[in-house]
Amino acid sequence: MMPTLEICLTPDLLRLYNLKEKTVVVTDIFRATSCMVAGLANGVEEVVPVATVAEALKWREQGYVAAGERNGIQVEGFDIGNSPFEHMTQQGRKIVMTTTNGTQAIHYSRHHAKEVIIGAFLNLNAVLSYLRQKQRSVIVLCAGWKGRFNMEDTLFAGAVVEALQGEFVLDGDDALAALSLYQTAQSNLLEALKPASHYQRLIRTNANAEEDMRFCLEMNRFDVLPILKGETLIRN
Amino acid sequence: MMPTLEICLTPDLLRLYNLKEKTVVVTDIFRATSCMVAGLANGVEEVVPVATVAEALKWREQGYVAAGERNGIQVEGFDIGNSPFEHMTQQGRKIVMTTTNGTQAIHYSRHHAKEVIIGAFLNLNAVLSYLRQKQRSVIVLCAGWKGRFNMEDTLFAGAVVEALQGEFVLDGDDALAALSLYQTAQSNLLEALKPASHYQRLIRTNANAEEDMRFCLEMNRFDVLPILKGETLIRN
Repeated sequence: MMPTLEICLTPDLLRLYNLKEKTVVVTDIFRATSCMVAGLANGVEEVVPVATVAEALKWREQGYVAAGERNGIQVEGFDIGNSPFEHMTQQGRKIVMTTTNGTQAIHYSRHHAKEVIIGAFLNLNAVLSYLRQKQRSVIVLCAGWKGRFNMEDTLFAGAVVEALQGEFVLDGDDALAALSLYQTAQSNLLEALKPASHYQRLIRTNANAEEDMRFCLEMNRFDVLPILKGETLIRN
Repeated sequence: MMPTLEICLTPDLLRLYNLKEKTVVVTDIFRATSCMVAGLANGVEEVVPVATVAEALKWREQGYVAAGERNGIQVEGFDIGNSPFEHMTQQGRKIVMTTTNGTQAIHYSRHHAKEVIIGAFLNLNAVLSYLRQKQRSVIVLCAGWKGRFNMEDTLFAGAVVEALQGEFVLDGDDALAALSLYQTAQSNLLEALKPASHYQRLIRTNANAEEDMRFCLEMNRFDVLPILKGETLIRN
């Protein structure tokens, strides 16, 4: 039987999905999962996603590099923020990371799914290869923005749907919507995202935001697949 | 200050929205709100949306026509189902209606918003005229399917966004997504909806489903605006 492919547009809708025995692909394009991919591809040893700033500071005491943002801005007392370029210069280090949406989506999934992997445009092909090889049913979980739909994560989900639509059974109108949105936007993702809320928010709060976002939209820059083992993300 | 226009993709996300002082446009294209519009335009006196079958049966004892479906199928003991053609032959009658998604979305809204109106492709221009005249901030609430996103309601939301985008401030990526989906699908809505889950579900369960759906996608057939007064929908 062909495995299914579903899209969950925000973590707030995840309780409507049956995660059992499925692979969850968490995506938070701007910028948590893009940072995880970029870091692990550049020699970061592991990334521990945590939900709160307090937890992150505890891991920091054990030598972890504390990374993350709240509302798009680096957390006070942390070592680095949420730019992929910062994560790419942490070779040999371990990172603990908390963000507004991305790490929390991972925690929603880890207790119920068979496994959790990390997806971004930066490692799209690595994600696709893994899903094809496993032949397990898949939920792409968009981190969204504070529970609400966002465009960039949905476009990533649409890219997954476009690639796998012949090999997996699409389940749900959200998968059709993501596919249509991606097909409309794919010739110039950055341009398509300029009216989007997170693009506008990052441009307001971060000096190098446009460079970050351009980088996060590069396809297949890294052949790395972050996978959750226990509470830690490592290279598969 | 220009009023805002937001889209809520499913009632399960409505708690993330501030409804205060806003007009909520509830839409459930297949088929609850299409039935309400078609009925009220054809002499139905009022429609009472209720959440449960038990409530509907109580109203029925008072002479109301009991209408509605569960999972796309007419409820046992009810007088009519959820085909707009059935609702158009109830001139002079009062209808009590319960459906899987549509009437429940109305109940979510009525306690917090300034007002609740009913939208469908069948009365799109009546909705737009009303919103332009009131100049109040708007939330288009898609009834969805059991809490999940659906395509046809989102396309209606996209039609509202396309018409009002210069006159209202679009708030949220969901509005941009609905607009893009509508622009892609608008040349042939029925064709675009054929892969959608609710289309497939109705075709399986209802003999005249395709005729119903074709009708529900007709634009501006009726110049009527159902508005909620207390617990009852009447013509504005």
